[in-house]
Amino acid sequence: MPGFDYDLFVIGGGSGGVRAARVAASMGKKVAIAEEFRFGGTCVIRGCVPKKLLVYASQYREHFEDAAGYGWQVGESTFSWEKLIAAKDVEIARLEGLYRKGLTNAGAEQFETRAELVDAHTVLLKSTGRTVTAERIVVAVGGAPSVHGALPGYEHTISSNEALHLKQLPKSIVIEGGGYIAVEFANIFHGMGVATTLVYRGKEILSRFDGDIRRGLHKAMVEKGITILCEDVLQKVEKRPDGSLAVSTKAGKVLEASEVMLALGRSPNTKGLGLDAAGVAVDPRGAILVDNYSRTNVPSIFALGDVTDRVQLTPVAIHEAMCFIETEYKNNPTSPDLDLIATAVFSQPEIGTVGMSEEQAAKAFAELEVYRAEFRPMKATLSGRAEKMIMKLIVNAADRKVVGAHILGHDAGEMAQLLGITLKAGCTKDDFDRTMAVHPTAAEELVTMYSPSYRVKNGERI
Amino acid sequence: MPGFDYDLFVIGGGSGGVRAARVAASMGKKVAIAEEFRFGGTCVIRGCVPKKLLVYASQYREHFEDAAGYGWQVGESTFSWEKLIAAKDVEIARLEGLYRKGLTNAGAEQFETRAELVDAHTVLLKSTGRTVTAERIVVAVGGAPSVHGALPGYEHTISSNEALHLKQLPKSIVIEGGGYIAVEFANIFHGMGVATTLVYRGKEILSRFDGDIRRGLHKAMVEKGITILCEDVLQKVEKRPDGSLAVSTKAGKVLEASEVMLALGRSPNTKGLGLDAAGVAVDPRGAILVDNYSRTNVPSIFALGDVTDRVQLTPVAIHEAMCFIETEYKNNPTSPDLDLIATAVFSQPEIGTVGMSEEQAAKAFAELEVYRAEFRPMKATLSGRAEKMIMKLIVNAADRKVVGAHILGHDAGEMAQLLGITLKAGCTKDDFDRTMAVHPTAAEELVTMYSPSYRVKNGERI
Repeated sequence: MPGFDYDLFVIGGGSGGVRAARVAASMGKKVAIAEEFRFGGTCVIRGCVPKKLLVYASQYREHFEDAAGYGWQVGESTFSWEKLIAAKDVEIARLEGLYRKGLTNAGAEQFETRAELVDAHTVLLKSTGRTVTAERIVVAVGGAPSVHGALPGYEHTISSNEALHLKQLPKSIVIEGGGYIAVEFANIFHGMGVATTLVYRGKEILSRFDGDIRRGLHKAMVEKGITILCEDVLQKVEKRPDGSLAVSTKAGKVLEASEVMLALGRSPNTKGLGLDAAGVAVDPRGAILVDNYSRTNVPSIFALGDVTDRVQLTPVAIHEAMCFIETEYKNNPTSPDLDLIATAVFSQPEIGTVGMSEEQAAKAFAELEVYRAEFRPMKATLSGRAEKMIMKLIVNAADRKVVGAHILGHDAGEMAQLLGITLKAGCTKDDFDRTMAVHPTAAEELVTMYSPSYRVKNGERI
Repeated sequence: MPGFDYDLFVIGGGSGGVRAARVAASMGKKVAIAEEFRFGGTCVIRGCVPKKLLVYASQYREHFEDAAGYGWQVGESTFSWEKLIAAKDVEIARLEGLYRKGLTNAGAEQFETRAELVDAHTVLLKSTGRTVTAERIVVAVGGAPSVHGALPGYEHTISSNEALHLKQLPKSIVIEGGGYIAVEFANIFHGMGVATTLVYRGKEILSRFDGDIRRGLHKAMVEKGITILCEDVLQKVEKRPDGSLAVSTKAGKVLEASEVMLALGRSPNTKGLGLDAAGVAVDPRGAILVDNYSRTNVPSIFALGDVTDRVQLTPVAIHEAMCFIETEYKNNPTSPDLDLIATAVFSQPEIGTVGMSEEQAAKAFAELEVYRAEFRPMKATLSGRAEKMIMKLIVNAADRKVVGAHILGHDAGEMAQLLGITLKAGCTKDDFDRTMAVHPTAAEELVTMYSPSYRVKNGERI
């Protein structure tokens, strides 16, 4: 390492950056990592983890209601947003501590500062103005909620970042967006008793998911009492004298809300990062361009995770970090495998999915067998809750491989994880068929749909 | 069908019998089915279904407690056993109606009577004394809780049958047994506030399950407040003047209880069934002996489900019924496939398992890789509940096939169902490793355990 302060300098202490730094350091490399906000990144600090804790909190109202059908009489309940947020913040701080401890134990030096690129091997630590050099630099600065400065009244809106730290629970909220963040927060706020309206530009929420699942979730959310306005966008947000917000939409609606949250996608955090100075190429959205080994056009600079805008998921960032380690430090060139990524939307009901939607598969294969079940989960029989579970398997008729699996309902995320293994392993519908049911479970539907519900031939349902 | 009243006569309206009757009738066969109690059998009437409804009911106390950590203040709750049982009975009646409707729609004649064999083709309908003949007879009369008449005071005890219809919730209960029924009911009663003691002859509850899971569940149940006395048996049950029961154990303990439930296994319902008259062979326990096609030693008589004591599970009985249909009515000889049956124990925490325990695998294979994770589920971080989730994968080192998967914790049954597919398809640990995690889920642990926790070589942990 002659001439460099470090073997590896990582900019960004999120899932991908911390993993790369920790593992490299544990291998004996001299490693430093800089983080300008809090170690843990989007996932731990203001993404997956706090979001799921809020999801849990928002489900209790239904538990209390459901209990009645099971013989319970439950007294009045009250909910304290302040207590929840305080408890959540304690947990997040604990997790941040674990991330830091992992880095410390591995021997990675930590800088609590924004860091910017100066050149192919040099990083500027903003808090001190000091520059350091490294043989390799990993940029893993993640992304942030996309801004929408052109919206009149944008300054009155919040993003998911602020939603996790609101001083008080709003009486009502308008959320713009149709992606998983918009949908998850709509369910969270509704579950906590907030009058919730979702406004989405597209024809149906959650584009790219299977159509049945999208419609099923939409219907379930509306039945719960969430208002969903598709094919509409916010045009203006005005603050009234009483502090409430008046939201005008393109279709001419005027909605009143205590808060307006925009969830219009996430953009790479590359502004002012010194990418120009270092000569690192980005795409028009500001995402860092990388090759199959997460290497930028500058051979000593790598990029991992959301900043590359490949797939914005924590496990993907971690996987990319592990591939970087294999490639650069273990002499084992390894490309991230981004095929057949199972994923979950922690909406209520939940979505779990892996592989192609029916719509995608209909374009990819000459003939599909579609297996579809819609049923009332057993728990709902006594609770009386009107909810349906949807399960779908998309099978390529030519070789009977299961090419898509989609679930709407309780534990869909847990199921998607394990269905992910079956798709990754190339399991066929016959493998599903010869598996004995586990009774009574919901997942047993997935192995007891013996006849196709319908077929799709050359893109047409027959 | 010259000379016979029916193509098929089915004795017993449980899962296996109803399936065989319904499908055969829907194929145009002339079918009758007799049931002496209620259609639906053990599963629907006094097994899987009511049991799981009680499990749901018994979980609410923990939901109420957990809510506090999530910002909820929940008023006093009270539980009405009477309301639960009434609601459960309504649901069971609805399901029984569906079973009957399925039979009716398919064209199967239903007799509400006990039926007994007279000879190889003749059945006696007890309620009328009428005899009918059939080309084929299926015996699917299931099983019942084993009796223990030698126990002094046996008349004061109940079985799982009565437990589902107790007039009132007992203050305390002693359950004898260490199998899944004993364990499930112990958790149900404890969750409803009943002081619960489990007494089991063996060294550890749930023999044949993976040792880690057995010990983990035992520990979790004790931590909840259930008393577990292993290596002890009931010796005497006496009724006191106040109606309470005094239970003496072999180890010299005297336990007081409002109810004593025996869960000492289940025995085939073959007593007085006319098997002798028809010449049908049984094993020493009274189970009907069948070949690989569920055929008894009498060529026209078949037996399905628990009465054969192969594997006492609803899906197995249904599978055996479908194999019978394939073999006898579709000219497609098909043996039930009883290998790698995934199963769940609806204890609290729940167990999901498929394939070999570590102990079994250690005998079957020269070298194992054992992957084991024990962790606090995310929900428990804010609820503060002291619970651990255990996940284990047993891998045959020679070919890296996953030969056992074992889970203790929430949704273990749902996970086991899908892990069942992976084992049935012969997936390797590499298939698990190359599957992307779904975050945050519990199941992601199953695809992120990259290094063995330990190895077992020639039966010894190394």
